[in-house]
Amino acid sequence: MGVSETPDLTRRQSTARQAVAPAYLKSFSSGEVIAIDRWMATKMLQGVGSPPIRLLLWDNSGITLTEHPRATLRVMDRNALWCLLYDPEFYFGELFSTGRVQVEGDLVHFLEVVYRALRKTSRNQLLYQVLFWLRHRPRYNSLTGARQNIHHHYNLSNAFYSLWLDKEVKQYTCAYFPDPLMSLEQAQVAKLHHVCRKLQLKAGDTVVEAGCGWGGLARFMAQHYGVQVRAYNISSEQVAFARQQAKYLGLENQVEYIEDDYRTMTGQYDVFVSVGMLEHVGPQHYPTLGAVIDRCLKPHGRGLIHSIGRNHPGFMNAWIEKRIFPGARPPSLKQMMDIFEPFGFSVIDVENLRLHYAKTLQHWLDRFNAHEPQVREMFDENFVRAWRLYLAGSIAGFTTSELQLFQVVFTRADNNDLPWSRAHLYPRK
Amino acid sequence: MGVSETPDLTRRQSTARQAVAPAYLKSFSSGEVIAIDRWMATKMLQGVGSPPIRLLLWDNSGITLTEHPRATLRVMDRNALWCLLYDPEFYFGELFSTGRVQVEGDLVHFLEVVYRALRKTSRNQLLYQVLFWLRHRPRYNSLTGARQNIHHHYNLSNAFYSLWLDKEVKQYTCAYFPDPLMSLEQAQVAKLHHVCRKLQLKAGDTVVEAGCGWGGLARFMAQHYGVQVRAYNISSEQVAFARQQAKYLGLENQVEYIEDDYRTMTGQYDVFVSVGMLEHVGPQHYPTLGAVIDRCLKPHGRGLIHSIGRNHPGFMNAWIEKRIFPGARPPSLKQMMDIFEPFGFSVIDVENLRLHYAKTLQHWLDRFNAHEPQVREMFDENFVRAWRLYLAGSIAGFTTSELQLFQVVFTRADNNDLPWSRAHLYPRK
Repeated sequence: MGVSETPDLTRRQSTARQAVAPAYLKSFSSGEVIAIDRWMATKMLQGVGSPPIRLLLWDNSGITLTEHPRATLRVMDRNALWCLLYDPEFYFGELFSTGRVQVEGDLVHFLEVVYRALRKTSRNQLLYQVLFWLRHRPRYNSLTGARQNIHHHYNLSNAFYSLWLDKEVKQYTCAYFPDPLMSLEQAQVAKLHHVCRKLQLKAGDTVVEAGCGWGGLARFMAQHYGVQVRAYNISSEQVAFARQQAKYLGLENQVEYIEDDYRTMTGQYDVFVSVGMLEHVGPQHYPTLGAVIDRCLKPHGRGLIHSIGRNHPGFMNAWIEKRIFPGARPPSLKQMMDIFEPFGFSVIDVENLRLHYAKTLQHWLDRFNAHEPQVREMFDENFVRAWRLYLAGSIAGFTTSELQLFQVVFTRADNNDLPWSRAHLYPRK
Repeated sequence: MGVSETPDLTRRQSTARQAVAPAYLKSFSSGEVIAIDRWMATKMLQGVGSPPIRLLLWDNSGITLTEHPRATLRVMDRNALWCLLYDPEFYFGELFSTGRVQVEGDLVHFLEVVYRALRKTSRNQLLYQVLFWLRHRPRYNSLTGARQNIHHHYNLSNAFYSLWLDKEVKQYTCAYFPDPLMSLEQAQVAKLHHVCRKLQLKAGDTVVEAGCGWGGLARFMAQHYGVQVRAYNISSEQVAFARQQAKYLGLENQVEYIEDDYRTMTGQYDVFVSVGMLEHVGPQHYPTLGAVIDRCLKPHGRGLIHSIGRNHPGFMNAWIEKRIFPGARPPSLKQMMDIFEPFGFSVIDVENLRLHYAKTLQHWLDRFNAHEPQVREMFDENFVRAWRLYLAGSIAGFTTSELQLFQVVFTRADNNDLPWSRAHLYPRK
């Protein structure tokens, strides 16, 4: 069943406000810190792997399990402490975005310290995963559910994303920094070239794209590589923007945007490409995605899938999955192979760009912070805090290796028209 | 149970003769071709996917299922036809090496035509795989079994391999041809540099190698990159050769060869490397291999595994597994991930060099053919035919995508000292 029937989500979508804390979470004064509060605080820290941090409770008294705490978290009331003890992963986000826990100093640094400690806990063991699943069952991406889940995030408003994404190709996916000093704009253009080179695009090729965002890659391919692109997306706001841009650039005859699910794809193409959609697909749908690719790829066709991933199977952070990206589930490489192996595709290149995503997100966070007043005007203070946590948490996810970024190039088994090396991906200037 | 207790294998090892056909396969005259022979020939062709080939039976009458046969197989007697009908994959090798089926024209071309047809049959379906397994149960690589299996192939004689491997670094694994016109010697040296660059070797690094062959990579790393290498191999003939060479080059203080199984590795190293061993490990041992790597790699260590692989799980050709490489089992990428994911390693680069192995094998086959008289003197005519089939069949395996060649680079999750691009693998001349 899709998520479309839960009244909670519908309400959140209609107001376009993420991270609105439910009523039971409202702040209340907590009185003096007593022995049981300190016991709870200790248990909570132990439960998340005893990170080298200090808790500052509502009476300004400190608690730490280490001699040299490397970061400080302020807990504003007793109820917040209870919530953190009960389900730290989820409630940290809820409480942070309502201002009831506050990080002193650099947020990314704090999150890195905590993520490293969390890795040493039993979180990746089976029992934990089962309990986690029962508590935070992910939203499944049926045809209607997928539409609701994507609507939740991507229809926020084009103006909002324009505040902090790159100005050049409006990419809401990992950029590519072959030189780490590149600007965000340069790195996003470099990413698009990198993808096109990996796909060995040549003029006249037909390309089908699954999950095209604001359509930047499709237009770029048409403009710079002379190909015909049909691009699918279920976010109506994004498709409207993409069509407008294509018209403005005179590319209507080369690029066609279709507001529909990738599962409805028809036709046969030389190339399949998908950048930043797989995270939203869910591993249980990978054989379906593989079948779609198998149906749509010509006998010697080739393809690329670019996706957030993980070193081993596991769930997305519960708060991110609930408040920011409903239905998101980054796969491990082993899980990704369920797209390719049942259909006998050959994987010919995998590149992990984890640190490139950390850098991309740092650019986004800097620009987001610089535009904080405009964001607050569009939404409210809680939204600003929630979004900041999402961006900072994602940076920490990539720098601590909780998250990976995989670009996987594949082709039909019979295709022997392969380059003898990957040197063409690294052209001399 | 290891294979050491099967008298059949022991006999074959003691004579160092592969592909000696058992007694029941001996040739006998077949008389006239009758209706049932033609019916059997038709059924056999249908059973292997109706390849566009022509059978020439012992009375010179032809049988084909296609208007334009692209290759011809001569079947010398009725018993050979029965064997082909019963188990074509295994008996083709047995009969070819005893001269009872003969290919007219180019052997690689014939095998490519057949492999492409075979792919369209049900061979990759579960029932077929189960029946295949019952018929040709692979030999498991327990500590003693592995030693027997490796002895079977690699102890043939250093002089034999020297006839047709490259003269420069004596590599019995896939070379790397960034320029397809390179000589075999140039391409093997290019492969070693490619591996060392992927590992970002720097002077003083400690390296542990699993399955080092004649020790060429270990010596190369020490000579050209100034590292310390400890290299494991269970083939006594190869280790003796490797030690002699290291001594000759004055590398005894930098390279240590250990005649033992990779599972006995001790110590902690900056780098783990294994080129061409994983094919012999078997997927059921991958978690063990992962645990060995986890035990031996320093906190920011990195590694590379180079192995023959497949697009989806399946068995090695039955004849090759029985006569040439006992215990061999090339993995799919999904299977390979069982080495990395349980231990949280990050896969950072995968490159598929399938066509490079086809080209390497073509060089080997050309040199083997050029030295046919010497090989016949060392062994016998059956051995010459068997080895030629093995080399030609492997070429066809790689050109038709039955086989892949994966180089997988991985690192500890916490290692953020990663290059910003792979351009360093493609240095300007």
